[in-house]
Amino acid sequence: MSAVAWEAGKPLSVEEIEVAPPQKNEVRVKIHFTSLCHTDVYFWEAKGQNPLFPRILGHEAGGVVESVGKGVIDVQPGDHVLPIFTGECKECPHCLSEASNMCDLLRINTERGGMLHDGHTRFSKDGKPIYHFLGTSTFSKYTVVHVGQVAKINPEAPLDKVCVLSCEMSTGFGATVNVAKPKKGGFVAVFGLGAVGLAAAEGARVCEASRIIAKKFGCTEFVNPKDHNKPVQEVIAEMTGGGVDCSIECTGSTQAMVSAFECVHDGWGVAVLVGVPSRDDSFKTHPIHFLNERTLRGTFFGNYKPRSDIPGVVEKYMKKELELDKFITHSVPLLDINKAFEYMLRGEGLRCMIRMDASGTTWINSTTLFYLPFTLYVE
Amino acid sequence: MSAVAWEAGKPLSVEEIEVAPPQKNEVRVKIHFTSLCHTDVYFWEAKGQNPLFPRILGHEAGGVVESVGKGVIDVQPGDHVLPIFTGECKECPHCLSEASNMCDLLRINTERGGMLHDGHTRFSKDGKPIYHFLGTSTFSKYTVVHVGQVAKINPEAPLDKVCVLSCEMSTGFGATVNVAKPKKGGFVAVFGLGAVGLAAAEGARVCEASRIIAKKFGCTEFVNPKDHNKPVQEVIAEMTGGGVDCSIECTGSTQAMVSAFECVHDGWGVAVLVGVPSRDDSFKTHPIHFLNERTLRGTFFGNYKPRSDIPGVVEKYMKKELELDKFITHSVPLLDINKAFEYMLRGEGLRCMIRMDASGTTWINSTTLFYLPFTLYVE
Repeated sequence: MSAVAWEAGKPLSVEEIEVAPPQKNEVRVKIHFTSLCHTDVYFWEAKGQNPLFPRILGHEAGGVVESVGKGVIDVQPGDHVLPIFTGECKECPHCLSEASNMCDLLRINTERGGMLHDGHTRFSKDGKPIYHFLGTSTFSKYTVVHVGQVAKINPEAPLDKVCVLSCEMSTGFGATVNVAKPKKGGFVAVFGLGAVGLAAAEGARVCEASRIIAKKFGCTEFVNPKDHNKPVQEVIAEMTGGGVDCSIECTGSTQAMVSAFECVHDGWGVAVLVGVPSRDDSFKTHPIHFLNERTLRGTFFGNYKPRSDIPGVVEKYMKKELELDKFITHSVPLLDINKAFEYMLRGEGLRCMIRMDASGTTWINSTTLFYLPFTLYVE
Repeated sequence: MSAVAWEAGKPLSVEEIEVAPPQKNEVRVKIHFTSLCHTDVYFWEAKGQNPLFPRILGHEAGGVVESVGKGVIDVQPGDHVLPIFTGECKECPHCLSEASNMCDLLRINTERGGMLHDGHTRFSKDGKPIYHFLGTSTFSKYTVVHVGQVAKINPEAPLDKVCVLSCEMSTGFGATVNVAKPKKGGFVAVFGLGAVGLAAAEGARVCEASRIIAKKFGCTEFVNPKDHNKPVQEVIAEMTGGGVDCSIECTGSTQAMVSAFECVHDGWGVAVLVGVPSRDDSFKTHPIHFLNERTLRGTFFGNYKPRSDIPGVVEKYMKKELELDKFITHSVPLLDINKAFEYMLRGEGLRCMIRMDASGTTWINSTTLFYLPFTLYVE
């Protein structure tokens, strides 16, 4: 069973399809859980893109290797894995650099609909090919993924929780712990409190920042820009005696990027950009903000190398050093996957978990929901 | 004897003046050597500023403590020192931070004409006060400086060489070694080959970068943007297979800042801004350049803490780990100080050393001059 997007913006159709065996350097994975991310919705709506349909979306998931193709030695059937939307070939200059996770071979590619090996799809329905998405296509009970895009994890980790580490959670959490790196007791501002922003705030909590300007999920203070008639960076500078030690921008708005940069303290402040801007956007500031010893960095997937680093993040969850459960606000069986799209379009909840092997009921984690500041964020 | 700027843009007048004793936390220094920096010329021309005259300019110098005021315990008469245009109180949050050198108390202040202690000047002529400049005013045989603005150095260091460490050389050198931090074998681009840019290139040489794109002074390659009909960042990316590992911008032009940022490699590239922009400039780029894991940082005085770090840089020179002599292209006695201004205005040479205690002749280091790429730089 797979949830096929036959057309842009139309409800997914859950049906039987054929999933071909894995080819060279490929792995066929039985997906147990997958969750819905904004990026899936964005490519399902296909506004301002080259539409590519029919397609199987999905890229946050946890599963078990079912079979492997030629040349695959790193994983074997039965291994628990997280498919990741960007890969790690372990051979290119980026993979060999300690600093980068932007693999030349397997870097995210939103336009590719076939597999790298031969350009063909492994999905079909009555002989008609169905396109892949991000090399993961996890809205399917079985999917085929390049071995460079699977992270082998602790088999004891609950897949319905660590699933969110394959995209959103690692992106936000890593932006804080790997890039902004607040010191214990530091002041951190998070811009945008969607799932990625709250994951960034969770990173600040784990780093033992003393003031996290945002709300709940470990945050200590909150600013709504609409409550002030001056730029939010000035409000934050006043609250903190000159600025925060670091800020993490998770909205993608260039105005928020500028505010996030200008609200960090001179001398040592670091601003980290996570949110994806529009194609024609531009970031603009007075260069003196840099000369006063501020740093501006961007990050992609929290600077984690998918295969090398993600298993260690799963271990952090297992050791209770990082919380994931609070990010999962809804759960639906695969047959109800369109409900997950509705929740997201209505801005309800953070992550809706889609259960591949269950026909059970929808549930909502109302305790968590109660605290979520959906409409409140620094923008 | 002091060289007094009585009016904006008029030749300095070398004459006897009174230099009052140092007050609380102040030091009176006998200057042995001072060199001319663009910043002196900029404030002498006084275009677009609040003019402050008569004034004694000068801020790159080496001298010996003559007497000290109340409360001074860190230096005593006879100590060899470099006066520095920005200070270190050792008590404010910036001084207590490992990352910052932007002291709250003694950060550079171009508009202050008196001493911090009482707002008065220590210089006068027939009772008429003469203003200070940057708290250093080194174009004078004797000057008074706040103790937080003097770096006590090895008395064996030749003051006519290490003098340049009090501004230009540390600014450029530190931008590379403290901020850009190229790895051994890395690719470095330097924008702007004035004295600061060449000091940045010297930093790259000391870090054992394998390709330094600029010319001479340890540089291995050179790009003249005028030779190409596409943006220089694209030329550099093609030369280096995707971009340099780090770049250092030393012109202050925002166009050069954008090029310097966009020419660094995705995944790990670091661009460092050193050049001071105009008041109304703005830095503009597409945010995707950040999200592809590039870093943009600015620096002030090479991130060196004046009192804590500069004595160590002097030691590097003493151990021949860093070259200074090649930066000193001219030398004049104090009486000929206006010649130094002429050399700089004509773009001749790098540093003109002004000898306070000699009435000797002017000399030009023609061997060094021969190699200087004055009109050639990436801009």
